[in-house]
Amino acid sequence: MAVRRQRHHVAVVCLLLCCVTPAVPIPDPRHREALMQLEASMQTGGQVVPSEAEQRLDARLRKLKEEEMARADFPPAMHFFKARHLIRNSPIYSLLQKMPKGSCDAHTQSCFNCKISNHRFVSGGVLHVHDFSMVEVEWLVRNVTYRPHCYMCLTDDQSIRFLFSSSCPKPLPHCSPWTLLENLRAKMVNTTDLDNSIMGNLTLFTEQDPEAAYPSQDVVWKKFERAFLVMWGLVTHAPVFRDYYYQGLAQFYMDNVMYLELRALLPETYELDGSTHDRAWTLKTYQEITRQFVAEHPDFFGARIIVTAHRGLNASMVTAAVEEAMKLQRDFPEIMAGFDLVGREDNGRSLWYFREALSLPAERGVTLPFFFHAGETDLQGTEVDQNLLDALLFNTSRIGHGFALLRHPVAKDLSRKGGVAVEVCPISNQVLKLVTDLRNHPAAVLMSEGHPLVISSDDPAMFGASGLSYDFYEAFVGFGGMSSNIGSLKQLAMNSIRYSSLSPEQQEKAMVMWQRKWDKFVSENSF
Amino acid sequence: MAVRRQRHHVAVVCLLLCCVTPAVPIPDPRHREALMQLEASMQTGGQVVPSEAEQRLDARLRKLKEEEMARADFPPAMHFFKARHLIRNSPIYSLLQKMPKGSCDAHTQSCFNCKISNHRFVSGGVLHVHDFSMVEVEWLVRNVTYRPHCYMCLTDDQSIRFLFSSSCPKPLPHCSPWTLLENLRAKMVNTTDLDNSIMGNLTLFTEQDPEAAYPSQDVVWKKFERAFLVMWGLVTHAPVFRDYYYQGLAQFYMDNVMYLELRALLPETYELDGSTHDRAWTLKTYQEITRQFVAEHPDFFGARIIVTAHRGLNASMVTAAVEEAMKLQRDFPEIMAGFDLVGREDNGRSLWYFREALSLPAERGVTLPFFFHAGETDLQGTEVDQNLLDALLFNTSRIGHGFALLRHPVAKDLSRKGGVAVEVCPISNQVLKLVTDLRNHPAAVLMSEGHPLVISSDDPAMFGASGLSYDFYEAFVGFGGMSSNIGSLKQLAMNSIRYSSLSPEQQEKAMVMWQRKWDKFVSENSF
Repeated sequence: MAVRRQRHHVAVVCLLLCCVTPAVPIPDPRHREALMQLEASMQTGGQVVPSEAEQRLDARLRKLKEEEMARADFPPAMHFFKARHLIRNSPIYSLLQKMPKGSCDAHTQSCFNCKISNHRFVSGGVLHVHDFSMVEVEWLVRNVTYRPHCYMCLTDDQSIRFLFSSSCPKPLPHCSPWTLLENLRAKMVNTTDLDNSIMGNLTLFTEQDPEAAYPSQDVVWKKFERAFLVMWGLVTHAPVFRDYYYQGLAQFYMDNVMYLELRALLPETYELDGSTHDRAWTLKTYQEITRQFVAEHPDFFGARIIVTAHRGLNASMVTAAVEEAMKLQRDFPEIMAGFDLVGREDNGRSLWYFREALSLPAERGVTLPFFFHAGETDLQGTEVDQNLLDALLFNTSRIGHGFALLRHPVAKDLSRKGGVAVEVCPISNQVLKLVTDLRNHPAAVLMSEGHPLVISSDDPAMFGASGLSYDFYEAFVGFGGMSSNIGSLKQLAMNSIRYSSLSPEQQEKAMVMWQRKWDKFVSENSF
Repeated sequence: MAVRRQRHHVAVVCLLLCCVTPAVPIPDPRHREALMQLEASMQTGGQVVPSEAEQRLDARLRKLKEEEMARADFPPAMHFFKARHLIRNSPIYSLLQKMPKGSCDAHTQSCFNCKISNHRFVSGGVLHVHDFSMVEVEWLVRNVTYRPHCYMCLTDDQSIRFLFSSSCPKPLPHCSPWTLLENLRAKMVNTTDLDNSIMGNLTLFTEQDPEAAYPSQDVVWKKFERAFLVMWGLVTHAPVFRDYYYQGLAQFYMDNVMYLELRALLPETYELDGSTHDRAWTLKTYQEITRQFVAEHPDFFGARIIVTAHRGLNASMVTAAVEEAMKLQRDFPEIMAGFDLVGREDNGRSLWYFREALSLPAERGVTLPFFFHAGETDLQGTEVDQNLLDALLFNTSRIGHGFALLRHPVAKDLSRKGGVAVEVCPISNQVLKLVTDLRNHPAAVLMSEGHPLVISSDDPAMFGASGLSYDFYEAFVGFGGMSSNIGSLKQLAMNSIRYSSLSPEQQEKAMVMWQRKWDKFVSENSF
């Protein structure tokens, strides 16, 4: 790692000085400068000493950021749905897309016959992404729903369901009779409206006013969960499942993410004749596709799976899920990273409720790393708000979201001292209505204190985003303001490897790969 | 002070335990409980050991808060303009109105012949309120503009100006000819529309959608500053000035605030014949009215003035203002608390820009306490964002707003260790568009860490609020969620005395007065 500690000594001396000596009425400019430097050295990346080329790139980024901050419509202050086109046209965003971002934690789906035409700028990693929201929904509509044998029905509550079948399937309860999409489209002069309507059912993104469309957390979560049901019949069809995951890897790779950790529900998948594959098949398929993708893209490092269960399940079902996860961890150690509980924390059961199930691995002396979602809530002081502390007590390897962490000084201290990184998902927290102006996101504070954290995209397809660069933009421009710099970006990218589930040897290897990409990125863009 | 440290020992032992021992895979429920108690003990008021009566009141508050948090329309998550009627009807708000809140820091104006009919529940203090926004604007319209000799003109930019004069005044530039309001109203069948229109010019409050009315910080600040210009001609008329301030004290007194520190621009005032009084007259008048009010209301403790200059002034003007403030501090030590700079930080000059002026008192060995506004910004990393550190380096007694403090770990540490309290103004920060959902206000974090802070109302009349109880509601229900309790309320009230500019002897006296009121409040409401 090209990170040196030159400033560290100055910082310590200065900390002693300024905490012991009371503030003097006439400030000494050198003392003031030392305190400002101390603060700068504390932030994420504050210990990075930039090379000359990095300094040139930093100056360029600084200038671009000054222009961006002078805008009346400052993107991080706006809802992402309204800001997306501004971000897309921002020169900072273009640079961030090219930047090797390390790894990424994602929730995803799969792809077939994907051709990747442009991978000049391949990069870093993402550690918090979910299985069925990796791929832009346009691909699902334009590619998957146009495949043969795709049936659709309309539910009583104005939603839709899909199923692939070699013959007309039995009707679903509360759904219209199945229609073969191929036949339906053949009767239409123009299928654009139909396709747009399908697309609208698969994502939260809307061109309408997002505040009006989603006035409350309850409304936005309802639509969010419903979109997963719409997607389910498409992405659990075995051939689609493989393709979706491949396409997901491709989209992150295109966004210069070189490693991925995916929260995956591990669904059973089905074939055209209605036969099914079990969850082990699904995990094995993740492993096979990952190997295939790495073989075809040697500068992609890989992906690992965090198996998830829904926190709406009851205690015995979660016990069964933990037992199965221990078995899968033993049988597929290469691909499987650990276990997590997913779904809206405010509505679901708390980690403490599941304490018996979650104690099983330790009781049996079996290794099952946890990667718990915790603190994705603003219900301060309630039972669910204790998930943060409980995640740490159950020795979680990272904290998913940790939006409420600042309000829990004890948990925050445990997280920092234990090196338990927070997976920060800015756009997700905004779209799901935890925060409006992203400058107020708690991670702005965590970054100013150099708390261990990584930037992730959670469910990019659901939010009309893709890959990781939009979230990196929000973090770099929104959280950091003029304080964040090339050091922050470098540290965030390195964090995504350092706090991954990879073994120390694998991390070392990944870091070498990333450093090569980083140096190339810097040299190509520092003019 | 009835604050004991019973939990402190447990907390220290536990802190050592949990920071030294790594988290164990199977959490021990006693360890978990100890950590939760540790966190509870760290928050504002976490060291308060409640009496039996306080515990009963706490249980009542807890139940009420649970009901409030279950609402779909949770007031702290909403814009205050939309939430005001909900808060007004909340039983928690009723209790907070009755509660002795200690002191309050306010910006205000004055009253004459004010009758106070109901002061059963008189109380605590407010430390950050501005001179010309103390009194609900309805009083200005219904009382002041109905006085004789009140002229009004319409400005080119759709605003209005007022002037009291015994004869028709000379026209103002960019304003219509003056109209005597008495004559204008005499010609009208119904003056309601006129009065409502005047009222709309004196406050930011609107029944319309606040997001549409004030789409940006620039827009809301423009209207904010314009409203002060409208008010200026009314409140700087010497007789009105006296009445306005008296009325201001009365309104805070009615809201159970027993002590006030007022940011005051100290305008020259004028008589009907156009003759004027200088700024010393204004300060002397504050002193006289305060003495009169205290004499008439022996359970009101008093008020002090923080003299302010606008940060838009140039360096030599601020130098002159500091020199005058030193003189006033010497001549009026009873009423004058210190000095501050006001106006929008983002547009004004930084404290560091004025460093020579601000160094004068120390250079001359003269006492002039500073109470700087700092960190009322979200422009992180810019020059203005250094005001927080500079305020502390200039030995500020408190920090006005400190909205950005969390993002400055060095300044935050200096503030905490130096006992420099943050004057938190929740509704102000929301209306002036620093934060949307008040649960995300940085003071929620400061409270969770027990950082020194007081709750204030800034410019209540401008925001359609009054007194201090609305802001206490937002802090208690919004910042704290289910975590805050009777101890938090008690500590916040006591903080407003402890962090006031009063001498230790005066503080002791004020604390005795407050404690008597508090005990009465608790005994009357703990059923």
